[in-house]
Amino acid sequence: MNKNSLLSMKDLSAQEILSILDDAKCFNSSHDDWQLPMRKALVANLFFEPSTRTHYSFESAEFQLGCKVSDFNAETSSVKKGETLYDTVKTFESIGYDAVVIRHPEDNYFAQLEDVTIPIINAGDGRGNHPTQCLLDLLTIYDEFDSFEGLNIVICGDIQHSRVAMSNKQALETLGANLVFAGPKEWQRPGFPTMDFDEAVEWADVVMMLRIQKERGAALVSQMSDAEYLEKYGLNKERYSRMKENAIIMHPAPVNRGVEIDSDLVECEKSRIFKQMYNGVLVRKAVIKRAFGLKPFKED
Amino acid sequence: MNKNSLLSMKDLSAQEILSILDDAKCFNSSHDDWQLPMRKALVANLFFEPSTRTHYSFESAEFQLGCKVSDFNAETSSVKKGETLYDTVKTFESIGYDAVVIRHPEDNYFAQLEDVTIPIINAGDGRGNHPTQCLLDLLTIYDEFDSFEGLNIVICGDIQHSRVAMSNKQALETLGANLVFAGPKEWQRPGFPTMDFDEAVEWADVVMMLRIQKERGAALVSQMSDAEYLEKYGLNKERYSRMKENAIIMHPAPVNRGVEIDSDLVECEKSRIFKQMYNGVLVRKAVIKRAFGLKPFKED
Amino acid sequence: MNKNSLLSMKDLSAQEILSILDDAKCFNSSHDDWQLPMRKALVANLFFEPSTRTHYSFESAEFQLGCKVSDFNAETSSVKKGETLYDTVKTFESIGYDAVVIRHPEDNYFAQLEDVTIPIINAGDGRGNHPTQCLLDLLTIYDEFDSFEGLNIVICGDIQHSRVAMSNKQALETLGANLVFAGPKEWQRPGFPTMDFDEAVEWADVVMMLRIQKERGAALVSQMSDAEYLEKYGLNKERYSRMKENAIIMHPAPVNRGVEIDSDLVECEKSRIFKQMYNGVLVRKAVIKRAFGLKPFKED
Repeated sequence: MNKNSLLSMKDLSAQEILSILDDAKCFNSSHDDWQLPMRKALVANLFFEPSTRTHYSFESAEFQLGCKVSDFNAETSSVKKGETLYDTVKTFESIGYDAVVIRHPEDNYFAQLEDVTIPIINAGDGRGNHPTQCLLDLLTIYDEFDSFEGLNIVICGDIQHSRVAMSNKQALETLGANLVFAGPKEWQRPGFPTMDFDEAVEWADVVMMLRIQKERGAALVSQMSDAEYLEKYGLNKERYSRMKENAIIMHPAPVNRGVEIDSDLVECEKSRIFKQMYNGVLVRKAVIKRAFGLKPFKED
Repeated sequence: MNKNSLLSMKDLSAQEILSILDDAKCFNSSHDDWQLPMRKALVANLFFEPSTRTHYSFESAEFQLGCKVSDFNAETSSVKKGETLYDTVKTFESIGYDAVVIRHPEDNYFAQLEDVTIPIINAGDGRGNHPTQCLLDLLTIYDEFDSFEGLNIVICGDIQHSRVAMSNKQALETLGANLVFAGPKEWQRPGFPTMDFDEAVEWADVVMMLRIQKERGAALVSQMSDAEYLEKYGLNKERYSRMKENAIIMHPAPVNRGVEIDSDLVECEKSRIFKQMYNGVLVRKAVIKRAFGLKPFKED
Repeated sequence: MNKNSLLSMKDLSAQEILSILDDAKCFNSSHDDWQLPMRKALVANLFFEPSTRTHYSFESAEFQLGCKVSDFNAETSSVKKGETLYDTVKTFESIGYDAVVIRHPEDNYFAQLEDVTIPIINAGDGRGNHPTQCLLDLLTIYDEFDSFEGLNIVICGDIQHSRVAMSNKQALETLGANLVFAGPKEWQRPGFPTMDFDEAVEWADVVMMLRIQKERGAALVSQMSDAEYLEKYGLNKERYSRMKENAIIMHPAPVNRGVEIDSDLVECEKSRIFKQMYNGVLVRKAVIKRAFGLKPFKED
C-alpha cells in the first residue's frame, strides 16, 4: 500500500490531521491558484455507490489542481463481467493513472488492495470510514472555533449505519473534544457515549445531524412518520431556539428535509451545511496533494 | 437567480437574441480560437433526460472555451437517495462550479432554483422551453436568409409535446416571421395558427419537421404505421418536389427516419439538419460566454 | 471512410503494423511527453458494451496526448429514443469532434458508417475485430522476442466468441509466427489450426489464454465447474511448470481467476498480463496520433 494513501482517520496522528487542515486553509487563501507541478496527473474516481457531494467535490478539487480525471462507471465496466476490485484498480495502475479515489459498499474494501502501488484515497467504505468527510467536518469546526480542545459536540441520528460517525469519533476524541451521541436507541453503538438530545442541544457548541440512511437498512423510520421523527429526534425550530448563541449546525448531506432537520433550518444563520461542502473541496485538494507525495505549504 | 442565466426565449428581447446570434457568427469566423479569460471555469452538465446532441454539443462548446466539465449522472448521484433538485444544484454552487447546464423532465423546473446564485443554462424543461435549440434554429435561418422579417415558416408534427415549438413560436414571432403549424389535429395547441401541410410546403421558406416524441406520450402513432404517417403528415419525396427553390428543411433531431421525413431526405441538398447541429455549438459558445458575464465581441 | 481510421488488422500491411509498433515504442522512451500539435483535439469514446481496460486506456492515451475527451453513455443518450448509430456518429462529427473511438456489439458495425468523414478507431465489434488489442499483444511479444518470425504461439480457450483470436490470427500469420489454437473442441473455428494444449504448453514461446465470454453465449462452462475447466483446458500450475524457460503468458483480461488460469499465476514471473495493459496505452497513443493524420516519429 502506498504510504500517501488515506484510508481511515485512525492512520493519522493529531499532528498530521492539523497539518492537512492547515494546508486546506492555505488553499482557501494564499494558494487558491496552486496546481500540481507534475506534467501529467491522471486520477480515476471509482464510485461504486451513489454520490453527489463527495464525487463532484473530488472532481472539482482535481480539476482545480490541474489533474486529468476519469470518471469510472462500474455499470459499464468489466465489473459487469465479474472482474474483481483488485484487478480493476490494478488495471488503472497499469494504464498510467497516478492515484485513485474509491467509494465502495464493502467495509474495509481496501484490505484486498495491499499490492496496489499507487495511492488510494478512500471516499467511503460501507459503514466503515469516510476520512475526507471527517476532515471537512473538522475544518468547518476549526474555522469557527480555532480549536477542538474542550468543545462540546453532539452527533445525532443514525449512528449505527454511519461511517461519518465512526470517522468523526476517532478524530474528535484524538483532538480533545467532548463528544456525545444522541438519537433513537436502536441506532446507538456500543462504546459511543450518549446524551438526551433535548439536553444536548443546550450543551453543544456543534450540533451535527446525521442522515437516516434508508439505503443501508435504517428500517425504524418506516414505522414512524417523518414529522414524528423530526419531533422526537430531529432538529426542529423549538430545539433550534434553545441552542447556544454561537453554536453551529452541521450535516454531511444529502439532507432528508423535514426529517432530521426542519427544512427552513438548512440555510439558517447557524447552519454550516453548505459551508461544509465548500470546505470539502479544500480538504480534498490537500489530501490529493499529499497523495502525490508533496509536502504541506508550511513545511515547504 | 443570476441575471446571466438563460431559461426561456421570452426572457430575451429581439435585440438580445440578435446579439447572441451575432456572437455565435463571430465564433464561426474571427473568434474560432477564443477561450474564456478565467483561470478556472468549472461547468457541470446536469442531464436528467436522455440527450446526445444537446448534451455533447454543450460539452464540445465548453471544451472549446477552455472549461473543465463535469458530467453529472443522476442515476449514480444522491438524487437516488431522494436529494432535491435545489439541494443538488446548490451543492454544485458550493463546491466551486461557475455555471450549470440543466435538462430536466419537469416543466419550469427552474422556478424552484430562485436562490441559486450561479448562472443556469436551460437545456430543456419538460414540454416547456429549449432556448439554445431555438437559438440554433434561428442561427440556421439567419445564415440562410440574413433576416427573419416576412419569412414564411411552417413547423409540422408533434406540436403538443414539443418544447422546441413553444420556444420557436416566442422567438420567431418577436422577430417578424410568418409562422404556421401543421400536422395531426390532435397535436395542435390553442393559439398556434395552422395551415394544411400540403399547402404549406409550397408557401414556406423554412419547413421545420418535429420529432414524434413517443417518450412524452405521443400515442397517436401507435394507431398509424410509420409509412402511413409519412404519407399523411411527413416530408416525403412528393412534398419535397413541391418546395420552393431556395427553401430549406430543418429538424431538431433525433430523426425518426421514414416517419417525419423520408430517410433519403435527411442529407439532401435542401436539408440543414446537420448544419443545425454545427450551429448548436456556436450558439452554445455564445450563451456560455454570456453566462460568465462577458460582453458580445461587437460591444467589446 | 476516413483513411486514418483503424477498423481491422487486415487493413494493415506488415510494414504498417511494424510502423505502429515502433511508434508505440517511441512513446515509451524518447517521446513520453509528446502531445498532439493541434490547438483543439476533441475525441469522443462511444462504448456500447462494458469495458474497463480498453475504455480507460483509450482515455489515458487521449489525456496524455492532450485531447479533450467526451465519454458517451448510450444509456442516457438519444439511442434510447431510437437514434441510429450512423446518426449518432454523424452528430459527433457535426458538433466538432475530430475522431471517435467505438466499441459496439454488432459485427462489422462500421459498414454502416461509410459516409462519416472523421476517423473511426474500432475498439471492438461483436465477435469481429479488436485491432488495438491485437496491436498491444503484438507489442508485448515484440518487446520480449524482438521478432515474430518463427515464434511458436498458442491461443487457448474460447476461440469461437473471441474477436481477439480473429485479429491476432490475421496479424501473427502475416508477421510469420507459427500459430496454433487449443481448448474445448466446441469453441474452435474452421480454418484455425489446433494443437493439444498439453503438448502446446511445452512447444510455445507465447501462451495466450482467452477469457470465457459468458456474455457472448459461451454456454459450455455452465456444464463444467470452474475447477474442472481449469484442470482440462486452463493454465494450472502443473502446465505452468512445463512451459519453456523464456516463454511468456498473456491474457487480454478481464481474467476469470481460477478458470482460464490459476489465480496465483496472474502476476507470476512469466506473466505479461499487466504489461499488456501498460502497452495498450502506448499502441493507442500511436493509433490516435495516426488518426490525426500525423506521421510516425521515425518518418518525421
